[in-house]
Amino acid sequence: MSLLSTPPRVITVGAGLLDEALRAQAVRTVPVSWRPPLPGTAEALAKVLADPRRQAANELAVGRLTSARPYLVGVRRASEVLEAGTFLHAGPPITWERASGPMRGALIGAMLLEGLLEGQAGDEHDAGRRLAAGEIALRPCHEHAAVGPMAGVVSPSMWLFEVRDDEHGGTAYCSLNEGLGKVLRYGAYGPEVLERLRWMDAVLGPALKATLERTGPLDLRSLIAQALQMGDELHNRNRAATSLLLRELAPAVVEAVPGHAAEVLRFINGNDHFFLNLAMAAAKVSTDAARDVPGSSLVVAMARNGTDFGVQVSGLGGRWFTGPAGVPDGLYLGTYGPDDANPDIGDSTITETSGLGGFAMAASPAIVRFVGGEVSDAVRATRSMYEITLAEHPAYQIPGLGFRGTPVGIDVTLVARTGLLPVVNTGIAGRVAGTGQVGAGLVKPPVEAFTAALLALAEQAMSTTT
Amino acid sequence: MSLLSTPPRVITVGAGLLDEALRAQAVRTVPVSWRPPLPGTAEALAKVLADPRRQAANELAVGRLTSARPYLVGVRRASEVLEAGTFLHAGPPITWERASGPMRGALIGAMLLEGLLEGQAGDEHDAGRRLAAGEIALRPCHEHAAVGPMAGVVSPSMWLFEVRDDEHGGTAYCSLNEGLGKVLRYGAYGPEVLERLRWMDAVLGPALKATLERTGPLDLRSLIAQALQMGDELHNRNRAATSLLLRELAPAVVEAVPGHAAEVLRFINGNDHFFLNLAMAAAKVSTDAARDVPGSSLVVAMARNGTDFGVQVSGLGGRWFTGPAGVPDGLYLGTYGPDDANPDIGDSTITETSGLGGFAMAASPAIVRFVGGEVSDAVRATRSMYEITLAEHPAYQIPGLGFRGTPVGIDVTLVARTGLLPVVNTGIAGRVAGTGQVGAGLVKPPVEAFTAALLALAEQAMSTTT
Repeated sequence: MSLLSTPPRVITVGAGLLDEALRAQAVRTVPVSWRPPLPGTAEALAKVLADPRRQAANELAVGRLTSARPYLVGVRRASEVLEAGTFLHAGPPITWERASGPMRGALIGAMLLEGLLEGQAGDEHDAGRRLAAGEIALRPCHEHAAVGPMAGVVSPSMWLFEVRDDEHGGTAYCSLNEGLGKVLRYGAYGPEVLERLRWMDAVLGPALKATLERTGPLDLRSLIAQALQMGDELHNRNRAATSLLLRELAPAVVEAVPGHAAEVLRFINGNDHFFLNLAMAAAKVSTDAARDVPGSSLVVAMARNGTDFGVQVSGLGGRWFTGPAGVPDGLYLGTYGPDDANPDIGDSTITETSGLGGFAMAASPAIVRFVGGEVSDAVRATRSMYEITLAEHPAYQIPGLGFRGTPVGIDVTLVARTGLLPVVNTGIAGRVAGTGQVGAGLVKPPVEAFTAALLALAEQAMSTTT
Repeated sequence: MSLLSTPPRVITVGAGLLDEALRAQAVRTVPVSWRPPLPGTAEALAKVLADPRRQAANELAVGRLTSARPYLVGVRRASEVLEAGTFLHAGPPITWERASGPMRGALIGAMLLEGLLEGQAGDEHDAGRRLAAGEIALRPCHEHAAVGPMAGVVSPSMWLFEVRDDEHGGTAYCSLNEGLGKVLRYGAYGPEVLERLRWMDAVLGPALKATLERTGPLDLRSLIAQALQMGDELHNRNRAATSLLLRELAPAVVEAVPGHAAEVLRFINGNDHFFLNLAMAAAKVSTDAARDVPGSSLVVAMARNGTDFGVQVSGLGGRWFTGPAGVPDGLYLGTYGPDDANPDIGDSTITETSGLGGFAMAASPAIVRFVGGEVSDAVRATRSMYEITLAEHPAYQIPGLGFRGTPVGIDVTLVARTGLLPVVNTGIAGRVAGTGQVGAGLVKPPVEAFTAALLALAEQAMSTTT
């Protein structure tokens, strides 16, 4: 009786439709946000959530991630830090046999650059045979304190940014950005790609090294914080950060290499993604500071090799948890379309892992012109990421959200509990070796990677009663 | 009877309180936005609104304003374009007697720079006597196709950006920005101010001239459009535009003046407002294209001389309509406070006149850290300006408002009808000659200027029946 004779009081759970309909009729509601957890994770989730170490471990880990102070301290030839006979590549470990078109293209290009192939018909077959035979060891960048965008191939004649974490002492490396279109990291290996890489080896690398020796270390945390206030999200939009970097370096470039200053400045000015590789190295050195905290469910790396999408977790050491890399959904260049797209590739997801990229899209409304969607989608993407992260970044802030810190520190248990996957925005490589970039868009990581990581955390979880 | 027995249908007019209260009770309302017109304008408003030329004249005028295509075509010494014995200044016409502290300071500085004073005690008195006697003619920048920030003083040894409107053929000039703190435009005239101006005359001006000869004309409309997507509003925040300009010019600077490139690039990099003067020249050449359309009530200039705030209107030729300049409300540097502030000064309100500055604050959430307030205030400021403007700018867009064009083209009748005054954000000069900048904030133009302009429009209005 009283149910019908008194005004209704309603608690709505999950989807908002009922809540909206009732509110439109001036009914008071108490909305409760709820989503079903990832399938098959209920038991493991209970174990991991009950681990008495978890909360303190995650606080420690995410605190180290957000307090890192990355500085660009130098520029070095890869031959100085890479073991002979080794090439690095993006993502979790991969063999030539399982490698996708752009990864193969980049490896062929690196062999050509190093003079290991003759630059003739049959190279691809020859390279495949020799790489399959182990003539060159293929190792993930992430296992050598490095990251690389797209194919992420690093060979001895390439130069690397060297970034040091002034707070925790770590070091990370990332290659120099080649520009857009037909470039090695997108799997292109034609003569113009190699010519550019040779110029980068002979001129750009030494010029930047000499420039950095004049300027001293450059505060990347500060540059990234400013770029976020200028519309970059530091993954697919780096126009502001690249501009700030160029204006900061320009006078010293002139003094360090007067004879090459104009060409070096013209090259950097010609490529709005030049800063991406610095954002990545800054992100890598910051997430590395959060590694190896026992009991922590914090994600410290997300990376793709063009075949697999892999995740690493602070409490689980160097283990990779993988699933198949998806194909991004986005905007295509020229006449390219989804059929030309390779599955997701590159270490650049380290930006999302550190609270940038897809997680910071609300700071970058103009990004939707590049990856598709509406400005409101970008804001919604950032807002949703607060549900699966442990902190708001103290320095990386979003002006349009009233200077709220970006969502940072993906927690495997929050992903499992909400079913929300990290938002990644990315470039799209052509699937055929030698093509180059075909577009840019958004991609979802595979659920399997997070489920597998959760199960591994459950296996290692301590129980409160033992 | 039926009023009580059927659901109410309500039209709410003006303030939103009643509307909100009814909507919270699920009552359907039709809100009508309304504000009382400016006091004493009802009769004039009726006359001007009935002028049969008005609508077409305003469409023509604002169309010319928004279709202007400003290019930076060169850099010239003022002595090439300024009549001998003349100094330019900001705002409507002013005499030494009525000039404020910073205007007097800048005029004294210009006389020192030109070698007309001896740089000793008593200079101020000497300068005053000679300027009052007409030894140097004082003319508004606006009457010589020029604009100048703050005091806006231009003397023969200063260099000017030359901006051409590729669409309508006009030309406008603006001085080169000196930087922040103790600078001539804020009324400082100490030795470091003069030394910097001498360096700008000997090195910077010629270097930029030679650089522009290499690069060719620079598309300012495109640069401004990009900077709006990177958090600038182009009046008090020019960090993105300055960065984009520097990266565009840097290679050519190296090639044009190898021996001075490092110091020139360091000077530009040291001053985030360097682009302001280009934004002003671009705005000036665009608003000038909209002048002299009979019957148009479009504002084509707003400018302050530190004593008076003046307005010019397309249909009213070169007449100034003035009121007392207000004191900005904002944030102060160091230990300065409101008592140190000079009334509003400078031609930089040409940015607001062309849909930038205060009108574009929604594009620049970070500006509130400089001028005060919250991000929501900046968005509200822009939104309110759509009520007094004739168009949305086709190229100057605000990403955070879904790429809506900035409100552009202030209509005197809309100001009078709504009582809404243009939102201006501005630097604040110290009121004592020689002080320099003391802060930045928001300021309201005087109502009198707009009322006077409306009355003049009414006097010239054609009536439908004649």
